[in-house]
Amino acid sequence: MPVNLPELDPSQLHPVAGVELGIASAGVKTPGRRDVLVMRLAEGTQVAGVFTLNKFCAAPVRVCREILAAGHRVRALVVNTGNANAGTGLDGLARARKVSAALAGELGVAPEQVLPFSTGVILEPLPADKIVAALPAAVADLKPAQWAEAARAIMTTDVAPKAASRQVAIGGKTVTITGISKGAGMIHPNMATMLGYVATDAAVSQAVLQKLAKWTADRSFNSITVDGDTSTNDSYILIATGAAGNAEIDEEASADFAAFRDALLDVAQTLAKAIIRDGEGATKFMTVKVEGGKNWDECKAVGYAIAKSPLIKTAFFASDPNLGRILCAIGYSSVDDLDVEQLEVWLGDVLVAEKGGRAASYTEEQGQRVMNEAEITVTVKLGRGSEAATVWTCDFSYDYVKINADYRS
Amino acid sequence: MPVNLPELDPSQLHPVAGVELGIASAGVKTPGRRDVLVMRLAEGTQVAGVFTLNKFCAAPVRVCREILAAGHRVRALVVNTGNANAGTGLDGLARARKVSAALAGELGVAPEQVLPFSTGVILEPLPADKIVAALPAAVADLKPAQWAEAARAIMTTDVAPKAASRQVAIGGKTVTITGISKGAGMIHPNMATMLGYVATDAAVSQAVLQKLAKWTADRSFNSITVDGDTSTNDSYILIATGAAGNAEIDEEASADFAAFRDALLDVAQTLAKAIIRDGEGATKFMTVKVEGGKNWDECKAVGYAIAKSPLIKTAFFASDPNLGRILCAIGYSSVDDLDVEQLEVWLGDVLVAEKGGRAASYTEEQGQRVMNEAEITVTVKLGRGSEAATVWTCDFSYDYVKINADYRS
Repeated sequence: MPVNLPELDPSQLHPVAGVELGIASAGVKTPGRRDVLVMRLAEGTQVAGVFTLNKFCAAPVRVCREILAAGHRVRALVVNTGNANAGTGLDGLARARKVSAALAGELGVAPEQVLPFSTGVILEPLPADKIVAALPAAVADLKPAQWAEAARAIMTTDVAPKAASRQVAIGGKTVTITGISKGAGMIHPNMATMLGYVATDAAVSQAVLQKLAKWTADRSFNSITVDGDTSTNDSYILIATGAAGNAEIDEEASADFAAFRDALLDVAQTLAKAIIRDGEGATKFMTVKVEGGKNWDECKAVGYAIAKSPLIKTAFFASDPNLGRILCAIGYSSVDDLDVEQLEVWLGDVLVAEKGGRAASYTEEQGQRVMNEAEITVTVKLGRGSEAATVWTCDFSYDYVKINADYRS
Repeated sequence: MPVNLPELDPSQLHPVAGVELGIASAGVKTPGRRDVLVMRLAEGTQVAGVFTLNKFCAAPVRVCREILAAGHRVRALVVNTGNANAGTGLDGLARARKVSAALAGELGVAPEQVLPFSTGVILEPLPADKIVAALPAAVADLKPAQWAEAARAIMTTDVAPKAASRQVAIGGKTVTITGISKGAGMIHPNMATMLGYVATDAAVSQAVLQKLAKWTADRSFNSITVDGDTSTNDSYILIATGAAGNAEIDEEASADFAAFRDALLDVAQTLAKAIIRDGEGATKFMTVKVEGGKNWDECKAVGYAIAKSPLIKTAFFASDPNLGRILCAIGYSSVDDLDVEQLEVWLGDVLVAEKGGRAASYTEEQGQRVMNEAEITVTVKLGRGSEAATVWTCDFSYDYVKINADYRS
């Protein structure tokens, strides 16, 4: 069961003017499953994205990169679950393009105005014909107010759908930001995660939108890990329709920019944390804060060393304050000139280690009290600078093994 | 149960002239457990070692490094299990030195001629007094022919003791190489593994011995992983007593050097692979060969990406040929200019992927046949050079989680 992931309340998900969603069943992997999502975007919409750095990136990721790099005006997205269309070579590219072109035909736009996405099993041919056959039904289903259904359509091993929505005043106009994400395993994004879509009716220039995609990804989807495996299909897409009628946000110095960026980050972090709360087999939600670093990269390296360690994650699963494992992970993170004498390690509000060893004030009872919680914060104070980073992860349980030993069957 | 790890036959472990072993019970963690090992080395013995690069390295590792760097002639080693003496600050250093000094007193040598080692739980004070009290019994027990008992004394979560022994002719003399190792979890050595001791009666100069320590470690202990966690206590020690009476091996160009190096590597690889066969919860022994690389480092990076992936390891546990996960791991390994079109991936003798996608000849039945084996080789042909590297690992099972959720209790 997801860790403190509230059930989705569709009434809390504000529609975004200029964005319509349609869902249909193609039976990609499971007959009858509603597994295809189409998003139609109003004319004039700006789209930005960041994608996995995995060299075996999926065919649709390659198509998306080409389209965005060429500056085409995107008018639609199509997402299937059940098959990743990754590790599929040139044939995979042709199948991804076939789906895009078919949707373009349905909508009366050009093929290069449609971004395709896939998630599911790697190394299997995409059943493009099944998806194409389902597109008319998805198009017929297009409407603005079904973000919750869209979140459900893109799930794979996810137990729960993930969505978030905020409204913020920008230059006297109320703008809406609504997003969905999916993912529970193969989660260690290295640009973004598979899959995050955030749409707003704010008017934002493409240049600013692309910068915001990278900036918010680094502080949300690029700060989580379930199992350290960077997917072939990670994609994080920002959509700005401009329908709110605000003056276009086109420079970073403005107060509007800051307000918009913060609301956007809030949505992105909520979606990213939802993936961790629903991490495969998760029973604990762990926040790893690393402070006092010389730079952001080293804080992140220490945070990820802790967040990726199977030994730490299994100890948290057992609610066992076996905290030497945290020191061990800090010690093998890639910070070459780390002085362990300067470090402090905190578990919740309890000082665990300082001066290279266990804190004199620490007791097992204090540690146990924090470990019994479902949400636990580990804070590492490096004592060598003023930078900080936060990483989110979950524990490692029997069910992680079970889910991944069973996934294909 | 360990994967194809033959039961130790003490009669196959040749004693090494100049090395005596003694074992006693200190009750460090478990009352009555034979948990302290002493090794006494004849005068004139050369010793070399490589140690963990973990910044939170254990107190005894720091003491060993000091002693070897200063060029002291080592005459004894003392090893305890049940407590790692890591994350213990200055107090831990004092406790390690207390144990060394006590053994030096028992043996009539100088304190800086004794190397201390510890393995077990991190962040707990070492019960040095208990260990000191057990030393007289360990010294009274010293004899050449108990390598199997020594292997058993240093175990932690190991299910089975690990030892190997070879004899080889060097310059007309038969020399013996015998070693022991321990380790099952927190295994991703970054210099050596916790703990490997290999002794020979060959005469070898200290300079050559130190080079061999690094060279053999890189191809044995530094090529294995159970869980990606680099321990605070990894230590790999080479001991050469010279009692065989061969002409001292003091340069790398000689035929004797090559024969000795190969026999030594055989022992070190056998010990390292034994750790994987006994990896926590292991049901499969996996060999990952990476060929056709531009250099050894990139081959190793690809090998470790596969060997560390929880998704691949859980699929192997399930004997599920979910081989897209292997492509995914290759894709996120750190080889920046990898051309996935040039790659081949083989599972045993079956070609799985080529030209960026699934091989036309591949069938699920072929993959399943190999996956059902207990020992499986994955071969990746990078197609961009002539270097190669091999990494060994095990699968990831329910029992890994169980063992590490329970370890301290």
